[in-house]
Amino acid sequence: MSQFQPVRFVDVQLEGQFWRERLETVLERTIPSQHVQLGEHGILESLTLPNPSPPLRYPRNHHDFTVQVFWDSDVGKWIEAAGYALSHRRDAAIEAKVEKIVDDLEKAQSPDGYLNCWYLGREPEKRWTNLRDNHELYNLGHLIEGGIAYFLATGRRRLLDILERYIAHVRAIFGPGEGQKRGYCGHPEVELALIRLYHLTGKREHLDLAAYFVNERGRQPHYFDQEAIARGENPKSFWAKSYEYNQSHKPVREQDKVVGHAVRAMYLYTAMADLAVELKDDGLRRACEVLWDDVMASKICITSGLGPAAANEGFTADYDLPNESAYAETCASVALIFWAQRMLHLDLDGKYADMLELALFNNALGGLARDGEHYFYSNPLEDEGRHRRWVWHTCPCCTMNASRLVASVAGYFVSHSEDAIAFHLYGGISTEVALKSGKVRLKEISTYPWSGDILIEVAPEAPAEFALKLRIPGWARDAKASVNGKAVDVKANTKSGYLTIARRWEKGDAVSLELPMPAERIYAHPAVRADADRVALKRGPLVYCVEEADNPGGPVQRLRLPRKAELKVEQRKDLFDGIVSLTADGSRVSDKGWDGELYRSEPPGEEKAKITALPFYLRDNRGEGSMMVWVAEA
Amino acid sequence: MSQFQPVRFVDVQLEGQFWRERLETVLERTIPSQHVQLGEHGILESLTLPNPSPPLRYPRNHHDFTVQVFWDSDVGKWIEAAGYALSHRRDAAIEAKVEKIVDDLEKAQSPDGYLNCWYLGREPEKRWTNLRDNHELYNLGHLIEGGIAYFLATGRRRLLDILERYIAHVRAIFGPGEGQKRGYCGHPEVELALIRLYHLTGKREHLDLAAYFVNERGRQPHYFDQEAIARGENPKSFWAKSYEYNQSHKPVREQDKVVGHAVRAMYLYTAMADLAVELKDDGLRRACEVLWDDVMASKICITSGLGPAAANEGFTADYDLPNESAYAETCASVALIFWAQRMLHLDLDGKYADMLELALFNNALGGLARDGEHYFYSNPLEDEGRHRRWVWHTCPCCTMNASRLVASVAGYFVSHSEDAIAFHLYGGISTEVALKSGKVRLKEISTYPWSGDILIEVAPEAPAEFALKLRIPGWARDAKASVNGKAVDVKANTKSGYLTIARRWEKGDAVSLELPMPAERIYAHPAVRADADRVALKRGPLVYCVEEADNPGGPVQRLRLPRKAELKVEQRKDLFDGIVSLTADGSRVSDKGWDGELYRSEPPGEEKAKITALPFYLRDNRGEGSMMVWVAEA
Repeated sequence: MSQFQPVRFVDVQLEGQFWRERLETVLERTIPSQHVQLGEHGILESLTLPNPSPPLRYPRNHHDFTVQVFWDSDVGKWIEAAGYALSHRRDAAIEAKVEKIVDDLEKAQSPDGYLNCWYLGREPEKRWTNLRDNHELYNLGHLIEGGIAYFLATGRRRLLDILERYIAHVRAIFGPGEGQKRGYCGHPEVELALIRLYHLTGKREHLDLAAYFVNERGRQPHYFDQEAIARGENPKSFWAKSYEYNQSHKPVREQDKVVGHAVRAMYLYTAMADLAVELKDDGLRRACEVLWDDVMASKICITSGLGPAAANEGFTADYDLPNESAYAETCASVALIFWAQRMLHLDLDGKYADMLELALFNNALGGLARDGEHYFYSNPLEDEGRHRRWVWHTCPCCTMNASRLVASVAGYFVSHSEDAIAFHLYGGISTEVALKSGKVRLKEISTYPWSGDILIEVAPEAPAEFALKLRIPGWARDAKASVNGKAVDVKANTKSGYLTIARRWEKGDAVSLELPMPAERIYAHPAVRADADRVALKRGPLVYCVEEADNPGGPVQRLRLPRKAELKVEQRKDLFDGIVSLTADGSRVSDKGWDGELYRSEPPGEEKAKITALPFYLRDNRGEGSMMVWVAEA
Repeated sequence: MSQFQPVRFVDVQLEGQFWRERLETVLERTIPSQHVQLGEHGILESLTLPNPSPPLRYPRNHHDFTVQVFWDSDVGKWIEAAGYALSHRRDAAIEAKVEKIVDDLEKAQSPDGYLNCWYLGREPEKRWTNLRDNHELYNLGHLIEGGIAYFLATGRRRLLDILERYIAHVRAIFGPGEGQKRGYCGHPEVELALIRLYHLTGKREHLDLAAYFVNERGRQPHYFDQEAIARGENPKSFWAKSYEYNQSHKPVREQDKVVGHAVRAMYLYTAMADLAVELKDDGLRRACEVLWDDVMASKICITSGLGPAAANEGFTADYDLPNESAYAETCASVALIFWAQRMLHLDLDGKYADMLELALFNNALGGLARDGEHYFYSNPLEDEGRHRRWVWHTCPCCTMNASRLVASVAGYFVSHSEDAIAFHLYGGISTEVALKSGKVRLKEISTYPWSGDILIEVAPEAPAEFALKLRIPGWARDAKASVNGKAVDVKANTKSGYLTIARRWEKGDAVSLELPMPAERIYAHPAVRADADRVALKRGPLVYCVEEADNPGGPVQRLRLPRKAELKVEQRKDLFDGIVSLTADGSRVSDKGWDGELYRSEPPGEEKAKITALPFYLRDNRGEGSMMVWVAEA
């Protein structure tokens, strides 16, 4: 089977209402309001060099440097999100704002190509002295991704030109050669960006630089040790205590446990999987597979939230999956989507697409409010009503990660090889794919994720033999399919989560797919202490939660869902743009009759209560109140 | 009714096996081993002045000063514990060690009476410049308590003489007069100690100084503000952020919510209640009652653990009573016993004695290991096996609080007024009480807390009318009593938790009291989220817990106790010196069949399991393993 590659976002038209609405919101509200925030917080101003002292608006954080150190990346991510949005609909006002930023970057760039506004504006002599902490190459990575998206949307490549000059400088500085620094960034990101740039430009040097950074990581003598000594510091006094924090504790091929800062881990693994594809590197492939299995076996929330601890913004012990204190950063789930997509193209296995979809519809999508102007950074699965969405964040990484993901979602639906087309997601798209046998026009019609009834119209230029591969999600039992009304044996033709329909296709062919979507109860492994005696509700790819808004009468923590209670699926046209809720007859623990007692020998009474659950991603869009995913089972 | 006062520890002989064993352990093992630790950690050495620089063995802590600042108090508490123990049995070796300390203190004392070894040894010019943080008067308080106990046990009052010279100096420095500092200690303690010294000496000046400190607390202009300004600091930069931390946020009579550092709160309330008794001060009395009700309604663990948060070693929100992260410092429960005892003498109400007993038998007693040489500082109600007893602690306050409490327990059993004798605790004691009508010899015989069958022999010198008041614990239902075999109507004669038997007593009279002790299930108010769907087991005054040692097969967190399961009371002569365990048929959640899955649609299976619970105070005496008080109810 030839290699699958994703059909790019620019080549996929989102037509379904679910994603159109999100895309319009990002374009109309998120991108403009984020630009306002970037301005108000001094981030845009920090690009206007020479400028010896842009105002410092934030206190120093625990890393002992200011948050400005990664502001370039925020600008890069905003451009990237804008680029994706512009590919759907051009907008002169947004483009003018991007151009102004590119002007500033052009002016700021050093004659030798170096371009980091934090160092250039403050400590130009200290560039490349603290790769461990100061995000220099990370910033470059996000600018590259921004440049690619903007170029694909508008055809303007001035930003990419600037960045390729910068990359040439980086290539001269870093590498195994005489006089070069054997460094790499404490925060992976540039690696995956360089590979994306290689995909766009075909320039092998970008792939090689990415491979160098990945391969060098964690080697001895340790670059971060040497660099710390050069700064006059004791390497042992690294604030995070261990290089596990940034996944440089071992060479990457020897890493078999998912550790450290969650976003860094996901970005690194994404690049590793990319390289495994590009270089057919089985060592990297095996490492990716081992790491994937490790995180999936014991280190991921049901919402796809990753990294339970705030202290390291990352991973802790196996099965340590608290609900209320879950850090579960939005960025980490967005980055998991990147990794899952790369794994899927390393091996077309539905388990990767299942996780991609789970992360997309739950922790990642939930990071952006319905209004497009509020955000979650951490995503606890339970809360008493205090955890609310932010308008902006001191570290605004998640805001633009949410918007760039939503705006680029079209790029995750379809892949193709020479002779096959694979659908990973559903929700209403059309696209055209070029196979060896010629072009094929595809139109997928559905109201997914609300319904699993999907129609796919397949229209090759001329009749042709090829395979259509349709993902049968892991949660979908008894899926049915037919071609032009004739049933297909789904079970017999499904392997690794994909139903293969290989035939001679011609214009007018239509495939019907039915993915049953009953409400489901989900239980966690008994080692997950936070979920003991609790149940989560799920339907299709959506994890549900109970919120006080739908369950008035006190904290939802007092609701009890009987194990045998029937779960009803209800269409709710009155909520948001029309959603599906789940309801059940349950009870609520009552504090009646306690009369000031704190402890007593009678158990608390219970009152009947109707329990209503809505999708987790929609939480905290309707005022204050308690929320929980894992509901106590009575 | 005339005022009750406690029969002092020196006048009560402990005869029951339960407390004899503890007392012997403290005398034989705890007192000597603590002296070794005081030596090994430089604490004894810090008293040998002039000594410009005793070795600094600890890193600076978050208070930004070293732990040495309160080392004098540790010495004071060790002397106090030794004093109580010596009152039961003299020991020349221990007494020689005390005398050596008294020699050192005598030499260290300034000509003007000042005696704080930390300041004298390091910054003599800075004395009395940081009452907020540096425990100067707190140290004096503990030395006073040590001096009293040692004097009562041995008749030697050299330490008290030294301290009375110091107190005279303190009295000159602090007060409302011209040129005096209007200060008081950030950590209350000296107040209750001064009142104890007043009780011993009858010197009104000690009571007045205590009253001054209590009344001055929290007044405006705020002394800690002024003091900070005098040090050149911004008072707003107080690390604890609020004076709630040390209960100086308001004048004490206006305080109606229990806030801040738990030990400080309890020591302060103890002195407030003492003063309410001594000065018949209704404002203080009302404040104490309101604060008592506040803590009992929503801020105390079932084990009597107080102060859930490590951050302030203290109180947080109502009903915030976590199990695994409960700080519940040993010292706080010891101090609660002091407060409860004072409240009991303000108002002979069994609710105070119930709490005194609960704290004694659970959180406080549990702070000292069975071997007498290991300690708990924080006392979580649940743990996965990582929370283990310490041999010593950087801040060793709890070690000597545990030993001084256990060694002084005889002082909590009996009180008397002119014409009444009240029994608060049971467990095997004898004593002699002087009433107006003459002396009465009393002997209480029981194996309490293992059994509630109690015999009290009452032997007045000559036949006399007086009342015997026997506490009927709040947990005891259907208590029975008889005098010389003749039944007493317990219900009719019990008020506020005390059964009054008023009659003409003569030698040979015997009272029999039966307090039924079935195993009980206890439930927490539904607002206590950590205890939802959980049950605690209790028998008599003892709270039970399940430990892996008795429930092998994995973490006890997986045990499930059916609501209807019978709780069996078992005598276990094989465990410790003979205890009572509770057992029930329950189940254990099984991880069989999960095969690497983290989430699935089938709930976990369960296996039958016998559940065995032992008293909480005995936990972590038999090797590692998980433990919990609040067991999941199935």
